[in-house]
Amino acid sequence: MELFAVPDLPEIREGDDLAAMIGERVDLREDDVVVVASTVVSKAEGRVFDLDDFPAGPRAREVADRLAEIADEEKDPRFAQAVIEESTELVMEAPFLLTATRFGHVGVNAGIDRSNVPDGDLLLLPERPTESAERIRDGLAADRVVVSDTSGRPFRHGQRGVAIGWAGLPASRDWRGERDRDGREMGVTVQNVIDELAAAANLVAGEGAGGTPVVVVRDWEFGDHDGSDNHFREVEGDFVRQALREWTFQE
Amino acid sequence: MELFAVPDLPEIREGDDLAAMIGERVDLREDDVVVVASTVVSKAEGRVFDLDDFPAGPRAREVADRLAEIADEEKDPRFAQAVIEESTELVMEAPFLLTATRFGHVGVNAGIDRSNVPDGDLLLLPERPTESAERIRDGLAADRVVVSDTSGRPFRHGQRGVAIGWAGLPASRDWRGERDRDGREMGVTVQNVIDELAAAANLVAGEGAGGTPVVVVRDWEFGDHDGSDNHFREVEGDFVRQALREWTFQE
Ligand SMILES: Nc1nc2c(ncn2[C@@H]2O[C@H](COP(=O)(O)OP(=O)(O)O)[C@@H](O)[C@H]2O)c(=O)[nH]1
Ligand SMILES: Nc1nc2c(ncn2[C@@H]2O[C@H](COP(=O)(O)OP(=O)(O)O)[C@@H](O)[C@H]2O)c(=O)[nH]1
Ligand SMILES: [Mn+2]
Ligand SMILES: [Mn+2]
Ligand SMILES: [Mn+2]
Ligand SMILES: [Mn+2]
Repeated sequence: MELFAVPDLPEIREGDDLAAMIGERVDLREDDVVVVASTVVSKAEGRVFDLDDFPAGPRAREVADRLAEIADEEKDPRFAQAVIEESTELVMEAPFLLTATRFGHVGVNAGIDRSNVPDGDLLLLPERPTESAERIRDGLAADRVVVSDTSGRPFRHGQRGVAIGWAGLPASRDWRGERDRDGREMGVTVQNVIDELAAAANLVAGEGAGGTPVVVVRDWEFGDHDGSDNHFREVEGDFVRQALREWTFQE
Repeated sequence: MELFAVPDLPEIREGDDLAAMIGERVDLREDDVVVVASTVVSKAEGRVFDLDDFPAGPRAREVADRLAEIADEEKDPRFAQAVIEESTELVMEAPFLLTATRFGHVGVNAGIDRSNVPDGDLLLLPERPTESAERIRDGLAADRVVVSDTSGRPFRHGQRGVAIGWAGLPASRDWRGERDRDGREMGVTVQNVIDELAAAANLVAGEGAGGTPVVVVRDWEFGDHDGSDNHFREVEGDFVRQALREWTFQE
């Protein structure tokens, strides 16, 4: 298995045809997986906004006031407004905003970025990243596309690449029913390969000024396994989310 | 960046010298990262046990009874006992056991495996995986070692490779203070590369009978960044763990 970045991609602007730009720069093979950072998908889809695009309502002001109090620094209620508009649920309101986006991803600030954005203050995640992945895939010689983001998580420090959209492959390898080395049937083992692909690609893409938002994964096989497209947990099966609903941050 | 599995590793037994076995099978380069599945580290370190090694105390029986009630099937209190002995805290007792291991990893059943274990019922995680990584590194021509496991997580379905021990590289690239594409100083971006390396390796190692517990990552550079060795969150900064402490599962 080999990973390399697509070279020489320019600054991406609204309306850019990402698939064409990738295809001009690398000779893709049918079984490559192309991992595209959500940043450039968002830029191509015109998801750059100004804070002024989000006049703050009373809820956003309340949320921002509380965050400002805790952090002891100003918090722009327009930013809180943007996060709220992107979300179906505020999972945590303090000491930071953790929300579920409309497409099901749970992340801080609904994944809104303020880095690597030249034309505006805010870069929102793609509205429907799996549809984005499908559109990009339609224009590529490669059959598999993952749209990634960088995201934090409970229990572990730091952030890592995750998949937020995918096309041409299942989200997971489902090993249940297969046998282990000792012939025993395996338990609840569902391997989320799109998150693993996004994490692998992030090692090459980086977080800074590298200019390498697209990474090709070559010679990786899904293999002869059942697949599953379950990716974002629903509240019903997510006990952590249920616990967070009942919890309030106390200083 | 390239990843390949170390070929032809036999069944690992207590006392096996993993570093020597790897070195006999691949020509390692100094800047390779060698990712070793905790399964084989545990086997080499004699972490295979029988359920009978863990006579259940009253706490384990209480926990197992509750789990049995919820699942409506028998739960062996000796297994609960093993999990309790491996843990410093039971983060969730129902509907499954989520604990913090002695070395700080939060996982279901303290990471105890019942697959790919021929000689016993249970395979416990290495006692101190970072020390394991250091020992393996001492015997290798490669300078960087990650000990991995496969683990689930909140918010997202399925499991993915994570790092539980590491040697010869920092856990994370710390991008704070560096500049983004637009010259802006970057915010709180700490990229946990050892988790990303473990996830990447897991795509090659797999979860089943593949017999490929060791994966070499070649031509990946940490790069000129600050490093951080923060990896497992302490309770103090982990709001999700705090929320779970206060929460009780209700059927
Ligand atoms: N060529 C190019 N690279 C970009 C652009 N925007 C971001 N990048 C690069 O894409 C990679 C990922 O950027 P990041 O902001 O971490 O994206 P995210 O993980 O999707 O939020 C980094 O190497 C950035 O330098 C762009 O418009 N053009
Ligand atoms: N050669 C060899 N492979 C093993 C052994 N034990 C497990 N494996 C392989 O190691 C890989 C990872 O196994 P898994 O049980 O998922 O390990 P974990 O992720 O560390 O819990 C799979 O390819 C297994 O077939 C062993 O003793 N010898
Ligand atoms: Mn992002
Ligand atoms: Mn990123
Ligand atoms: Mn394991
Ligand atoms: Mn595994």
